[in-house]
Amino acid sequence: MIILNGGSSSGKTGIVRCLQAVLPDPWLAFGVDDFVDALPARMQGSEGGIEFAEDGGVSVGADFRELEAAWAEGIATMARAGARIVVDDVFLGGVASQERWRKVLDGVDVLWVGVRCDSDVAAGREIARGDRTPGMAAQQADLVHLGVAYDLEVDTSRTESLDCARVIAAHVR
Amino acid sequence: MIILNGGSSSGKTGIVRCLQAVLPDPWLAFGVDDFVDALPARMQGSEGGIEFAEDGGVSVGADFRELEAAWAEGIATMARAGARIVVDDVFLGGVASQERWRKVLDGVDVLWVGVRCDSDVAAGREIARGDRTPGMAAQQADLVHLGVAYDLEVDTSRTESLDCARVIAAHVR
Amino acid sequence: MIILNGGSSSGKTGIVRCLQAVLPDPWLAFGVDDFVDALPARMQGSEGGIEFAEDGGVSVGADFRELEAAWAEGIATMARAGARIVVDDVFLGGVASQERWRKVLDGVDVLWVGVRCDSDVAAGREIARGDRTPGMAAQQADLVHLGVAYDLEVDTSRTESLDCARVIAAHVR
Amino acid sequence: MIILNGGSSSGKTGIVRCLQAVLPDPWLAFGVDDFVDALPARMQGSEGGIEFAEDGGVSVGADFRELEAAWAEGIATMARAGARIVVDDVFLGGVASQERWRKVLDGVDVLWVGVRCDSDVAAGREIARGDRTPGMAAQQADLVHLGVAYDLEVDTSRTESLDCARVIAAHVR
Repeated sequence: MIILNGGSSSGKTGIVRCLQAVLPDPWLAFGVDDFVDALPARMQGSEGGIEFAEDGGVSVGADFRELEAAWAEGIATMARAGARIVVDDVFLGGVASQERWRKVLDGVDVLWVGVRCDSDVAAGREIARGDRTPGMAAQQADLVHLGVAYDLEVDTSRTESLDCARVIAAHVR
Repeated sequence: MIILNGGSSSGKTGIVRCLQAVLPDPWLAFGVDDFVDALPARMQGSEGGIEFAEDGGVSVGADFRELEAAWAEGIATMARAGARIVVDDVFLGGVASQERWRKVLDGVDVLWVGVRCDSDVAAGREIARGDRTPGMAAQQADLVHLGVAYDLEVDTSRTESLDCARVIAAHVR
Repeated sequence: MIILNGGSSSGKTGIVRCLQAVLPDPWLAFGVDDFVDALPARMQGSEGGIEFAEDGGVSVGADFRELEAAWAEGIATMARAGARIVVDDVFLGGVASQERWRKVLDGVDVLWVGVRCDSDVAAGREIARGDRTPGMAAQQADLVHLGVAYDLEVDTSRTESLDCARVIAAHVR
Repeated sequence: MIILNGGSSSGKTGIVRCLQAVLPDPWLAFGVDDFVDALPARMQGSEGGIEFAEDGGVSVGADFRELEAAWAEGIATMARAGARIVVDDVFLGGVASQERWRKVLDGVDVLWVGVRCDSDVAAGREIARGDRTPGMAAQQADLVHLGVAYDLEVDTSRTESLDCARVIAAHVR
């Protein structure tokens, strides 16, 4: 299993698609965005769910955390059942987020990958995408890496997604 | 857990969104479309993956089935971990598809819901959506229900999604 | 040229896709949603642009109206240049919106179509879509038809998009 | 008016969104993708419409050209009516495509911008996007610039969208 962690607009999804293309075996891709899409619409913008502040800040509540934990356990089961899985996540809690994954992934072989991107580059790409609350990229660029331990790190500031994917793929057994 | 089964363009997704809105507790929604999106792009249109024929026929291969089984086990784990989950699926194998779910859902309380839609109505809605291979709706309208046992059935031909959702919600403990 | 007017979630887009399918000649489809997508992101949620209130109310400003007028003139030119065009719009200003179109469409043959949908049915479909501010459907259901004159009207409350499209197509010379 | 020309996956759309963000006045954005979306579904993959070959080749037919000409005239009218407009296009016909625009834009002040991207970089980004026929980027990278005259050119191979947009914006009166 591969877990990519990086801030909003750091280029995780592009790397995931390239990984699926360059890895010879079929890998399933899941991300925290899929989890958020699976939530009831009313939990987007509510205290117990997930809130996006006007400055790009993101906060999540108790209901969100509870369902997210069940979701992560399910992903772990898929891996144990033999599926190759790449997950892209945004560790809003830094090392605490990594610990939550570690707990459910006991016994699963994980390659931890940090996806870095300079704050100003990510902020520019956020404008170019046009579908995210402005400010998220800058707020999360460093925050999500606090205290997190990686097997390897890539930096999309000046490296293409496909090249990052090739570096990661070389570490996959 | 709730499992909705129905052919393409029978209105499953609309019912799921309405269910998430009318049920007081938060329910996570997953569907076979999410699973297909999680596959590598190259498995769409390949023999081992999933193929969409020009006449709307759909066939899936061995790699698809293997990964799908792992995905279903993961969904079952999420339910066992306490998450309320509604799944929408297309039982291309009819009762055999239902059996695959039953096997991984041992011990999980499931409400089986059949989503019916007259073949010609579904075919018309397929045109109105504009994003599906023409012919899928007609091909799947009856096929997916062959031999499948339900706790309740709804028919979207002349009933709105929200009304179908209310009927289903009344059966949720 | 065909202009469809109806409230949010009344089913205009589905009818447009069906019209393009049943009409033997190729028709280009444009809608007010395309115009809004063409605006700078910052005009969404600004006083001069377009604002979506929490109750589903929609208000547009001076910059919006000015650019919209230029857009409508362009659509009129496409029609005069020989393209068959179907437009779907939301006449937030009722008859005043129709007058704006009439002014730029001088000399163009237009089939005016009202797309009705019972307020509660449209509100239910808004929930089933899941991508619109709740309340828009109910607020606009009657409002957009105030004082507007039509060549024909269809009602999607109990008629499928494809059937509505066939009725409209029968009026196209 | 600004016209950006570049191959598939050269980064035109990202530059357009950044342009809309950095230019102080509101600019409307239209692209050839919007035109293709406006066509009837059946013209995608038909001889008279637009065809995407398996190797990424794209060919368009007589019906496509006729409707496209009307569309371009409409865009020209919008510009003459006072709207600031940025168009992104793919000049499959090279200089002939530019001539088609010149003809309808008589009297309109146009800034012609070439968007270059190294063929292999564009091909990598095509994989990262995951929503285009593989091969289009490589096929179009040079083709679309054949004989075309520009006021300025940008190269996204090693320059971010936002920086390209700033260079272009500096040329806008």
